[in-house]
Amino acid sequence: MEPLGPVREFEEIRSFLKDLPAADGVRLGPGDDGAVLGDGTVISTDLSVEGVHFRLDWVTPEEAGARAVAAALSDLAAMAAEPLGVLVSIAVPRAGEGAGPFMMGVRGCLDHLAIPLLGGDLSRSPGPVFLDVVAIGRSEAPLLRSGSRPGDEVWVTGALGGAAAAVQGWLAGSDPSPQAREAFSYPRPRIREALWLRAHAPLSAGLDLSDGILGDAGHLAAASAVRIELWIDRIPIHPGCPSGPPWAGLLAASHPPLWSRGEDYELLLTAPAGGISPWVEEFRRIFDLSLTQVGCVGEGEGVWIRSAEGTGDAFRAGGGWDHFGGVEEESEEGIS
Amino acid sequence: MEPLGPVREFEEIRSFLKDLPAADGVRLGPGDDGAVLGDGTVISTDLSVEGVHFRLDWVTPEEAGARAVAAALSDLAAMAAEPLGVLVSIAVPRAGEGAGPFMMGVRGCLDHLAIPLLGGDLSRSPGPVFLDVVAIGRSEAPLLRSGSRPGDEVWVTGALGGAAAAVQGWLAGSDPSPQAREAFSYPRPRIREALWLRAHAPLSAGLDLSDGILGDAGHLAAASAVRIELWIDRIPIHPGCPSGPPWAGLLAASHPPLWSRGEDYELLLTAPAGGISPWVEEFRRIFDLSLTQVGCVGEGEGVWIRSAEGTGDAFRAGGGWDHFGGVEEESEEGIS
Repeated sequence: MEPLGPVREFEEIRSFLKDLPAADGVRLGPGDDGAVLGDGTVISTDLSVEGVHFRLDWVTPEEAGARAVAAALSDLAAMAAEPLGVLVSIAVPRAGEGAGPFMMGVRGCLDHLAIPLLGGDLSRSPGPVFLDVVAIGRSEAPLLRSGSRPGDEVWVTGALGGAAAAVQGWLAGSDPSPQAREAFSYPRPRIREALWLRAHAPLSAGLDLSDGILGDAGHLAAASAVRIELWIDRIPIHPGCPSGPPWAGLLAASHPPLWSRGEDYELLLTAPAGGISPWVEEFRRIFDLSLTQVGCVGEGEGVWIRSAEGTGDAFRAGGGWDHFGGVEEESEEGIS
Repeated sequence: MEPLGPVREFEEIRSFLKDLPAADGVRLGPGDDGAVLGDGTVISTDLSVEGVHFRLDWVTPEEAGARAVAAALSDLAAMAAEPLGVLVSIAVPRAGEGAGPFMMGVRGCLDHLAIPLLGGDLSRSPGPVFLDVVAIGRSEAPLLRSGSRPGDEVWVTGALGGAAAAVQGWLAGSDPSPQAREAFSYPRPRIREALWLRAHAPLSAGLDLSDGILGDAGHLAAASAVRIELWIDRIPIHPGCPSGPPWAGLLAASHPPLWSRGEDYELLLTAPAGGISPWVEEFRRIFDLSLTQVGCVGEGEGVWIRSAEGTGDAFRAGGGWDHFGGVEEESEEGIS
């Protein structure tokens, strides 16, 4: 089995989604975290494949089920959409066996968030376990990737690198720390957090950090036609992450920094200058979660990496990711 | 590889969907062909797994993609919902290779029906090809399984057994007839047909024949709390089906009749007596498709099989399917 990791983006698939004609009843087609119907219904679908997204010698089936649902719901958080329910398709090697524990995990996550399970499908799989989770939500004004403007600030919820630290531990044959393990096994979709911030702060754009902050900031920069500057020494590092300088590995293609590897399912948000900072303390009190400014938005394109004080070079990360640790090579990209 | 065929229904999964509390914004949860939101949005998800639902030595990737989409859209037809779009999740063995032809088939089917592709997800698969298609539609008054009443008539669109005849041919090592092959490879979701009938005839209930008419009539009987009588000598047999008495194999568990094996994606409909027959000719003219009465609805429960003239015994098919050729043993059941 190959090391767990997201797969290369397929340009040939993306080509099927480009330049689609506008359709009646569809407000937003492919290209954001979810599709948006004319009435504000938001729909996203998210695959979890055994051996690609999880391994059953690392996590339990319950954890794999919970993680699959959390990852799907994170797309609704990214768009600040209120969840209406999910559908779950699952294929397991033997019919009638083994699906139950995955669905226990699915239900556990949904019950915790008071989100209904609306239906799904099931099948035998002649190979690995497959889960596909469809998340359905609603938003009158979904938060898109395309709204960032020069002068905006870039913020992130929570801390990054916990899930990647767990994977690194497992791949090295050791047990990850309990904090890292939980970050991988039970990522928290930031749904209430997104709805609260959307209601209070003048958010201009957002997405969830599934691919990793470098790649995801690149998506946001491209969709908004702006340049995003990330302050590397302000990236909040997850307590489950081994300590070290945040830029270690940034230039080594084979070992990108843990905080850049994604699957944290935190939110990357932009807002006009001063729009978020008044809410940081109340947000932390309500959600027990940090909000950290990690950069700013300017004219131009791509993602640039520098220190918060502006010392040192600004590395261009947009447009040519390979020298930043295979971010594009290994980037997994939802089509939606 | 095992013979292709649908898998056993998982009671343990079904148990996760039963007795769910009603949720705000959800009109209909699991148990019908799709879930229905409060505003009439209909959502269904449908799995297609290589080696279970299709084999690539039988059909091309394009055909597998088209068939996966058609099967998913058939759930919208079953509910007489107007399609808004679909999302497609796909996992293929090698990233960047092989997904294109499947998506060509997906787009071909969608373009033919003028339905937009709204998004999806993609992944590498360490095993078989895996497709999950989410179909989204809208209906102010979705056609449910629960509306049949004693005295209603039971009708079916088109003819049955073509897809099963193709599978039988492939399993026997021979090439199926072109008609049978097309029935398997390009099933037609009866969307326009369902919308037209819904607008003209007083339909009381309906579903699509994915599992096979015996099992599917059983679902309808159970949902409506009625007894369904099927007239075995009136079942319309697909021209790609080898000829023979329609009841051949009915009592042989290992070889159920081809017309009962499902995957035809025709519609099974009920309506009050005389409600459909005035429309048969116009329907045939518009859609080049037959409408055939195949039975009636009575008080009681289960599915009973007899001749149209009432001669011979009425076999009870509901409640104990095993003696009817493993209908339940091999029944594939969407959760939704």
